[in-house]
Amino acid sequence: MRDPYCTEGRPDPQIVSGAPRLPESATERAMTIRKPYLLYLGDAPDNLAIKMAQGVLDWRPDWCLAQWRRAGAGVALKLPEMTPEAAADQGAGTLVVGVVNAGGVLPEDWIDDLRRALEAGLDIAAGMHVRLRDVSDLGEVAARLGRTLTDLRVPDRSFSTGKGTRRPGKRVLTIGTDCSVGKKYAALALERGLRAAGADADFRATGQTGRLIAERGVAVDAVPADFIAGAAEWLCPAADPDHWDVVEGQGSLFHPSFAGVTLGLLHGAQPDRFVVCHEPTRTRMRGVDAALPTIAQVIETTLAMGRLTNADIAPAGICINTAALSEADARDTLRAAEDSHGLPATDPIRFGVESVVAELLR
Amino acid sequence: MRDPYCTEGRPDPQIVSGAPRLPESATERAMTIRKPYLLYLGDAPDNLAIKMAQGVLDWRPDWCLAQWRRAGAGVALKLPEMTPEAAADQGAGTLVVGVVNAGGVLPEDWIDDLRRALEAGLDIAAGMHVRLRDVSDLGEVAARLGRTLTDLRVPDRSFSTGKGTRRPGKRVLTIGTDCSVGKKYAALALERGLRAAGADADFRATGQTGRLIAERGVAVDAVPADFIAGAAEWLCPAADPDHWDVVEGQGSLFHPSFAGVTLGLLHGAQPDRFVVCHEPTRTRMRGVDAALPTIAQVIETTLAMGRLTNADIAPAGICINTAALSEADARDTLRAAEDSHGLPATDPIRFGVESVVAELLR
Repeated sequence: MRDPYCTEGRPDPQIVSGAPRLPESATERAMTIRKPYLLYLGDAPDNLAIKMAQGVLDWRPDWCLAQWRRAGAGVALKLPEMTPEAAADQGAGTLVVGVVNAGGVLPEDWIDDLRRALEAGLDIAAGMHVRLRDVSDLGEVAARLGRTLTDLRVPDRSFSTGKGTRRPGKRVLTIGTDCSVGKKYAALALERGLRAAGADADFRATGQTGRLIAERGVAVDAVPADFIAGAAEWLCPAADPDHWDVVEGQGSLFHPSFAGVTLGLLHGAQPDRFVVCHEPTRTRMRGVDAALPTIAQVIETTLAMGRLTNADIAPAGICINTAALSEADARDTLRAAEDSHGLPATDPIRFGVESVVAELLR
Repeated sequence: MRDPYCTEGRPDPQIVSGAPRLPESATERAMTIRKPYLLYLGDAPDNLAIKMAQGVLDWRPDWCLAQWRRAGAGVALKLPEMTPEAAADQGAGTLVVGVVNAGGVLPEDWIDDLRRALEAGLDIAAGMHVRLRDVSDLGEVAARLGRTLTDLRVPDRSFSTGKGTRRPGKRVLTIGTDCSVGKKYAALALERGLRAAGADADFRATGQTGRLIAERGVAVDAVPADFIAGAAEWLCPAADPDHWDVVEGQGSLFHPSFAGVTLGLLHGAQPDRFVVCHEPTRTRMRGVDAALPTIAQVIETTLAMGRLTNADIAPAGICINTAALSEADARDTLRAAEDSHGLPATDPIRFGVESVVAELLR
């Protein structure tokens, strides 16, 4: 008898996303982006626009040779200014497009700059949804000159759909009350702190800046939606029982634009522990007209939804970005969070992550 | 003072996904797939493999001229058998690849068949993650012969990220306890039932089979993850206050592979009402080793998560696929569901959706 119900065409576990199929491996392959970097800022108006350049400079200063800005730029990094020709002369390998343009489309004069960088001898790395090779004639120019174009946001491999099966190894995920509250910085600080405490730990990048810093990972927000959880499972595979994967969180379960990404990442990462990241001066969710959740709501919802793939999920701490607060106010805010939630609370950049690391290793 | 926190590079609302940018419009453009169809089944082993062909035959029988199967096919539709040459002779416009192959990759002999269909004068429509034009030389052959290749699963336009802003018009979303429990059939039945009751209603397709049936929509599982909610917002835009969009659900909030898709669709659709779809003989989630949730759990979690974009979200009914039950058992099962949840419960194919429609219009 035929089934009168049509199923919705979910891919079988073997079915993979549309990206070119590369050989599977238990761990990721490192990317090869020639160093050092010339960081391109275009005519970025503010710090928010150059967050990618700032991230790589903060975490990989040794890789950053210089910056290149257009005349109209409103911000700068603490780096020498160089043209691509001068940077190539001094050994630079890659122009990193470290700036986001409103509208997501590269302006014509930026494209001219990228072409000039290729002509000067540099490769290019960027984190747009669009491939560099599909922008104007950059693909042709790079091919003619033998340069490499690296798209940090575009998946360079295919993924299976998620399985949800428990796997060995320990995992901690940073979870945000909102977007852009310091989840990547908290995760990088936790990797450093866990290693300093003698633990075996790896930062697992889930965004384009994290990928540039770690030279591995996947920008989960650009994976076809069916494969979010599968990409997260690939990112932090089975490991030694004492190994910690520190997984960079994305979005927020309370953000109406991106909660699907956050949930797929939560299910795929199947974290044993999570760290809530929060920005205490924010009043509305970033970019939309929605209320900010409380830290308690985030803990409750993360537990409720995360139990699907890890019944033992538990919070391990709270990371609060106190950059906008005085030191006294920052300490008060952290103490109040500790008292309210019974968890270590810190600002990972200002006060370190020792208390959260101790909780993870307890 | 520079912000020591790196934001994670979420796109601004203006930033769009990587697909080619097409003009925005308040409503979707209809697809133009030449009818009638020759449904290609390849050597499909079972009914599950031909669910796409079955779906279009069940809901658009007038569009289906014939089927074409390979010698090894284990199943058939109730349609005449024809070669592509014979079908073209009788006026067929398009070969619809109505079969899923394990592994997601087209076998060589199927590709030969598709090439033969192009040569015979037919266009091709398919619902794979991979584009038809990227399969072997099909793109060249189609271009040479002037045939159209339609990829039902690949987004043919870009989307903005979701906003979460309430918009006028009424929306009902089908929500599953699992994948493949009849969400699309329930939604199509609800569109038909609402229209029969004099309401203004439109089915909104979110998968490749639904797109083929409705000739519009978006396969949300193939949209880059950042744009799931945005694609859903585009799919069911602001409308007259009494208009009903009946949105086809995807996946399940309790499926470890696909819950991110389900949540993004829930947030983007911001439904006023939802209908829980369930298959009562299933014991484990499809394709993975995970327990099935109860209908009560699905209602509770859908309410908890759906309130983010629609504070007034409420359940409107339960659709149970009773195909595997006797009529007496089916009626008992439905009565028990009504008693447990205080909602109308029906099998939309076996007993119709009048009770759920009445609840929606109450």
